[in-house]
Amino acid sequence: MDGPDLRCSVCDVVAGPLDWNCKACGGVLDVDAEHLRRTRPSTALLSEPAQGVWRYLPWLPVSEVLSLGEPTTPLVRARVGGAHVTLKLEGALPTGSFKDRGSALMVRWLATHGASEVVVDSSGNAGASLAAYSASAGLTCHVFTPRASARAKLAQIAAYGAVLHEVDGNREDVTNAAISWAADGFYASHCWNPMFVAGMETFAFEVWEQFGHDVPDAVVLPVGAGTLLLGAARGFAALHESGLAARVPKIFGVQSTACAPLATAWAAGSPEPAEVALEPTLAQGICTRRPPRGRQIIEAVTASGGMLVAVDDDALRRSHEELAAQGVFVEYTSAVATAGLVRLFEEGHLDRSDRVLVPISATGLKTSGT
Amino acid sequence: MDGPDLRCSVCDVVAGPLDWNCKACGGVLDVDAEHLRRTRPSTALLSEPAQGVWRYLPWLPVSEVLSLGEPTTPLVRARVGGAHVTLKLEGALPTGSFKDRGSALMVRWLATHGASEVVVDSSGNAGASLAAYSASAGLTCHVFTPRASARAKLAQIAAYGAVLHEVDGNREDVTNAAISWAADGFYASHCWNPMFVAGMETFAFEVWEQFGHDVPDAVVLPVGAGTLLLGAARGFAALHESGLAARVPKIFGVQSTACAPLATAWAAGSPEPAEVALEPTLAQGICTRRPPRGRQIIEAVTASGGMLVAVDDDALRRSHEELAAQGVFVEYTSAVATAGLVRLFEEGHLDRSDRVLVPISATGLKTSGT
Repeated sequence: MDGPDLRCSVCDVVAGPLDWNCKACGGVLDVDAEHLRRTRPSTALLSEPAQGVWRYLPWLPVSEVLSLGEPTTPLVRARVGGAHVTLKLEGALPTGSFKDRGSALMVRWLATHGASEVVVDSSGNAGASLAAYSASAGLTCHVFTPRASARAKLAQIAAYGAVLHEVDGNREDVTNAAISWAADGFYASHCWNPMFVAGMETFAFEVWEQFGHDVPDAVVLPVGAGTLLLGAARGFAALHESGLAARVPKIFGVQSTACAPLATAWAAGSPEPAEVALEPTLAQGICTRRPPRGRQIIEAVTASGGMLVAVDDDALRRSHEELAAQGVFVEYTSAVATAGLVRLFEEGHLDRSDRVLVPISATGLKTSGT
Repeated sequence: MDGPDLRCSVCDVVAGPLDWNCKACGGVLDVDAEHLRRTRPSTALLSEPAQGVWRYLPWLPVSEVLSLGEPTTPLVRARVGGAHVTLKLEGALPTGSFKDRGSALMVRWLATHGASEVVVDSSGNAGASLAAYSASAGLTCHVFTPRASARAKLAQIAAYGAVLHEVDGNREDVTNAAISWAADGFYASHCWNPMFVAGMETFAFEVWEQFGHDVPDAVVLPVGAGTLLLGAARGFAALHESGLAARVPKIFGVQSTACAPLATAWAAGSPEPAEVALEPTLAQGICTRRPPRGRQIIEAVTASGGMLVAVDDDALRRSHEELAAQGVFVEYTSAVATAGLVRLFEEGHLDRSDRVLVPISATGLKTSGT
């Protein structure tokens, strides 16, 4: 089979193309760094289609396209906490969330390497996205999801023909149920699979083109498993290393105080995610108690000069309303990032004159039925 | 105030910029044809932004932008009725439906001409879209909607800060309630306002660019009030008249058999919408018993060499499933068009080798909560 090796980020052992973690040590996998150096960004390689994820195919670790119609997600200016900032509307992607960047690459990779079935766990957006791309590629998709998930999301997953496994319990119970069920199948976790993270790099590539071959001063993102943050940071780093961007933006990750293992670790100066409880919150979609790539996320934020913070549901609700009153209707988890930005302004970590970009990770339609 | 005159399409009297119909005869208004001739498509005028509705600002009858972040909506290939066709995903627009093309222009126009309040009637998508653009422009938006509308749509409208007026009764009762309430305010009907239809022309402009300065053989659209069909037909005609496109596509409009005034008129060879009943259907969003622009729609379809047909809910449901199984999750009204296309293939009106384009008017998330 073509394509790069997958290697363990902890012990450097080469993994099989369908492994979801390192069989030697249990660590998270990444795409072989040597392969990435050979295919890193170069404007000479850019080609058709004119927009979206697959415009960057020559820069990506897969060699074939799997498309459901991905636009270059649009930018819109909005007022957040007294500043004018730029929002990037990831809800314009085919299934309505940023997850499509990762699903497109991951399902393309799995299909190329002979998978016929995928097993995923998701509170909704990732499940819907993987179900859609699996349908497009002809793979059977089993989605494990909390029974309490938003009805709109479950209806969407079922419509794509995925087999829905509703699990009683919290997010971790769902993950455990999926892994145990997948013993003989393929566990395609968006938190673990390196191709999923690789797809998120296209977020940075689009921003760089939309900013006229430049980058913003800061990018502020919601963080659960942190795949968008990590992919974006890697994409910006790749642009910088290739000489296409003069610098990297500072990366700020925002969590919900209801479940903030990374922001808690940051405050304590720890390189590892903290052990935290899981409280109820409107931002259920980003409640990941033990993010597999937590250490990588903390490293990436540190390297960029940013930081990790957390906000509560009151702040989230205020920010959600501030955006909606301007005509921008977002999923609650997206308002975590804008609420975090308000706090970063107030505490002086960012200046209101900085060029700040915030991804709106999903459309408000995703949770409006709840 | 700047901008073109609005004229009655029936008696040619000049109307005020905030009039919703002709005060002399009650007819529908259009943008002055002489003005349109002066601003018609020319590639020399195309400029930034690189994508979406406002890329075509120099071709449009407004002179300022009102943007919530409109992408050039993506194309995706899909199998429909045994053929490979191209879908254009209008759900990627900011509020999740094609209505944003019209709302952007109409609200921009109304704000420029001093409106502070708008009153609209909508079963959902148009209401959400107008509420969003009104919020962005600082106008108070009153939305009249059937109480039986999809919950996700009503939640979205309310989130934008619009005043929601839920009306008991059918679609016509809602319209009458809005017009009567708006006696002292401004009735901003997407069915009547010529700027709304003008915004729909950008659909054709994008298709023309996406097809490499060419047009498909046929475009098959769902039709209720028919603003997308009419705007698309006018946009393609303008491209042809300007010499930018060698021909126009055949335009096919598809209605639900539950409410098919235009398809019924077509079958009878009548130039006027037929009097029809209103039956229950999954395609409630396109049940418009008396489309104000019905005569214009029939003329546009005739001029293009296309036709008008209707399909029932069984056909709609089959087509909805066929698309979802390929990873394309659409609102039920969108599947009316693909179901109609299947019928057009089966009856020999279109050939499976024709280059056919179908707009997916809104994402399935719009109705998945119902």
